[in-house]
Amino acid sequence: MSGTLALVGVGPGDPELLTLKAARILGEAGVVAFPQTETGATLALEIARAHVNPAAALLPVAIPMALERGPARAAYDAAAAALLAHLEAGRDVAFLCEGDPLLYGSAMYLLPRLAPRAAVLVVPGVTSLTAAAAAIVRPLAARNETLKILPAPLPDAALRAELAAAPAVAIIKVGRHFDRIRALLEESGHAPAAVVVEHATTAHQRITPLREAPAGARPYFSTILCYSGAEGWGRGENAA
Amino acid sequence: MSGTLALVGVGPGDPELLTLKAARILGEAGVVAFPQTETGATLALEIARAHVNPAAALLPVAIPMALERGPARAAYDAAAAALLAHLEAGRDVAFLCEGDPLLYGSAMYLLPRLAPRAAVLVVPGVTSLTAAAAAIVRPLAARNETLKILPAPLPDAALRAELAAAPAVAIIKVGRHFDRIRALLEESGHAPAAVVVEHATTAHQRITPLREAPAGARPYFSTILCYSGAEGWGRGENAA
Repeated sequence: MSGTLALVGVGPGDPELLTLKAARILGEAGVVAFPQTETGATLALEIARAHVNPAAALLPVAIPMALERGPARAAYDAAAAALLAHLEAGRDVAFLCEGDPLLYGSAMYLLPRLAPRAAVLVVPGVTSLTAAAAAIVRPLAARNETLKILPAPLPDAALRAELAAAPAVAIIKVGRHFDRIRALLEESGHAPAAVVVEHATTAHQRITPLREAPAGARPYFSTILCYSGAEGWGRGENAA
Repeated sequence: MSGTLALVGVGPGDPELLTLKAARILGEAGVVAFPQTETGATLALEIARAHVNPAAALLPVAIPMALERGPARAAYDAAAAALLAHLEAGRDVAFLCEGDPLLYGSAMYLLPRLAPRAAVLVVPGVTSLTAAAAAIVRPLAARNETLKILPAPLPDAALRAELAAAPAVAIIKVGRHFDRIRALLEESGHAPAAVVVEHATTAHQRITPLREAPAGARPYFSTILCYSGAEGWGRGENAA
């Protein structure tokens, strides 16, 4: 009998934003795997640590920040092999995912490699998008508005096309693209109502109206929320 | 001293998908308010009931399904007044929200009415979108793809424009618009990979490939996920 792989969303940063289901599964899992960046950071583990079974084997998994090409592909192959060894030995494995596992998460690259060979369970988590909206107490989208989630690394032409006439937009993965994105949001008319939210719900949370933010790179985990749809919004409410 | 209004996301349906923070706040709140539809349904309360302080005053709030116009506006005014009476008497009020409070939630209409007059705290919740993706173990969006969330009541022309060349699309509020939406997804090429998820994470959850679904209305809480972006997906993985 193979073990089950649980992809567990641990939410945006505040450990209290884990779900009860995530906390239960982490208390039961014999093996807890978690992404480790090239600089050694293990954010998902830090978020969830209080709920991990003290007797669990901890398995750091090198996950490249780059897109799945060449070296990244080899890293995912290696990660899948390490997890599969535990699963084939009959051990249940919980793999921790920042935010939600299936919304731009790197854990999803493990799925085509492992889903054909093991039972997979996904535990959805609170995303950084809704956490950022909560931090500024402003809707992401309302009524029958289209909501567009745009990764900042997209080329200018693609972003311009999507920004045209879009009342509800969230820009993710801002990082080193900040200055370019701000210029595009000025062009599209979103800038006056836009707010930059860094590290939502963590001790490092920072909220800055777009036009007041200094030039230069932002953290990778930054989101720019642009919402000016429903009446009475877009006035820069304070954080809760 | 006025009380604090907490808008608390209770997640998509499975009571175990409440966050630890939501459970704590509901255990402490003296007044727990919750939406009640015209037919008497109180879904958010059913989801959260196990965590509500047994000594709390329960306050059903009539929330119209219609958009905020005319009678709906009057209903939100009345709801805000009922909550404000408690807040001004110094009582903390938790208002339960299905999914997340700020992603197409009706609680957001209370904000312009109450935020100027009381402290507001928003507790983000797991959305039905990530819950639906978890149910079919398939990404919502990956890499640098744009994700579009499209309300089904939008007119055909608006939906056609957004569906063109969009690899990652989620259609929400499907309800009585199902047949029309299916025709549009056939036209745009999304139909072969699209999956209908009804009542994700609840006992009534139902997963149907779009082309196998019978004609006619779906429940309001249905989502159609169309994802065919990353390699190895769009093959109809089984539910966890």
